[in-house]
Amino acid sequence: MAIVSRDNPKIKMYTRLRDKKQTRADEGLFVLEGARIISDALKENVPLKSAFYTASAAERYPDTVSALISKIGGAAEEISEEVSQKLCDTSAPQGIYAVAPRLDKTPPLDKIVDGGKFLILNSLQDPGNVGTILRAADAVGISGVYLCDSCDIYNPKLVRSTMGSLFRVPLTDRLGYRDVIALFKASGIPVYASVVDKTAESLRGFAFPESCAAVIGNEGNGLSNEDAALCDGRITIKMSGTIESLNAAAAAAIFLWELCK
Amino acid sequence: MAIVSRDNPKIKMYTRLRDKKQTRADEGLFVLEGARIISDALKENVPLKSAFYTASAAERYPDTVSALISKIGGAAEEISEEVSQKLCDTSAPQGIYAVAPRLDKTPPLDKIVDGGKFLILNSLQDPGNVGTILRAADAVGISGVYLCDSCDIYNPKLVRSTMGSLFRVPLTDRLGYRDVIALFKASGIPVYASVVDKTAESLRGFAFPESCAAVIGNEGNGLSNEDAALCDGRITIKMSGTIESLNAAAAAAIFLWELCK
Repeated sequence: MAIVSRDNPKIKMYTRLRDKKQTRADEGLFVLEGARIISDALKENVPLKSAFYTASAAERYPDTVSALISKIGGAAEEISEEVSQKLCDTSAPQGIYAVAPRLDKTPPLDKIVDGGKFLILNSLQDPGNVGTILRAADAVGISGVYLCDSCDIYNPKLVRSTMGSLFRVPLTDRLGYRDVIALFKASGIPVYASVVDKTAESLRGFAFPESCAAVIGNEGNGLSNEDAALCDGRITIKMSGTIESLNAAAAAAIFLWELCK
Repeated sequence: MAIVSRDNPKIKMYTRLRDKKQTRADEGLFVLEGARIISDALKENVPLKSAFYTASAAERYPDTVSALISKIGGAAEEISEEVSQKLCDTSAPQGIYAVAPRLDKTPPLDKIVDGGKFLILNSLQDPGNVGTILRAADAVGISGVYLCDSCDIYNPKLVRSTMGSLFRVPLTDRLGYRDVIALFKASGIPVYASVVDKTAESLRGFAFPESCAAVIGNEGNGLSNEDAALCDGRITIKMSGTIESLNAAAAAAIFLWELCK
């Protein structure tokens, strides 16, 4: 029996989770929209709580819908097109939605066991940027990402723009910037600040140690001098001509590329 | 005398230029919004046709507004807050707007004189991506960008996201992909396709010749096999794990970083 009422409590809860950071935090849940991201979540064994799909989504994405049903049974429910219109958050909705529990990934990152290359994001505000950066971090094989004082990692736009990397990258958003710096100091692992400053060391050719971390700062203002001063080095992408800075996600992609060389 | 009517013909023309690609093409004009991009246009001697600013913008951005007035005189006009609400295209409008002529940059790029490093964008659709890529191309000192079969470079979102690089980067959108490839073939300059294919050559450590071009394909589908086959080589960013691809702007940033090493 398909859900046809936009006032169904499950539907109302989904939209609250979609729209409100506080509801996501209170319930410990977040939403996924689209066949690709839901299929990624299933592949990574995310224990989905519920799912909704239209009859036409079941036709267009038979593998994803049958995987959903075999995984969570009756918690995957058919919905009408009208209800789908209420749930969707994209301009071309695919009619498939799921609710997932927050990814509790802190424990492996609150102590650093094996070294590796780490990324620290400080005060990033744009969900699309953070999603793109997580995807790039996944691509270069990062050991872990610390998201500090930044936007909500369960924001639907962020989740979507990670293209599944959210499920794969070791990640925590539970620690503040100073706590993360203290953690690396205690582990003896150097931390390098990405700054826009021609007097800083050039990223080109910089030999990062085998185990280290890089910090990327806020989109508009970069990393504050105070926050950069807590790091062991200051590195910059030297730019030609009069350009002042790169887009935060583009700068982060280049940094990650060099960091994980 | 400030413009207070939302029906003023100059105001209506501005909104048409903002919203309609066809109007931009017909009139040979495009719009700029915000103090930063207008100040960049003035610095790069873009011959602005007209400008509009609110009284509060004149207070907040006195240097930009007086530079506007000294440059274009009475064609820089004060507008009411209500008219500004009609012109604005951003969530936090600064109340300062200008109309610029299309940047006719084709002539230096329709023949390749001095060699250098070039970027070819093929079928890019997202204005924000293209803007971010132009900004990265500017940062690494690209010799020229060919935008083929892609979104309108005068789209307001694209213009905004270039942060002024639109005015600085040698750029043309007048040539189709095959014409650009033919141009490079005729000049004897090799062209490398950026592809997502584990069998292609790895970007890491690839020695690009002193003069060459790189092609970046569509966000969703990448470069078609057919279009890649027209190039002299196929290069890929090798990725770890199960990730399938990077965001187009992030991939382009990394490619540009290596291309202009």
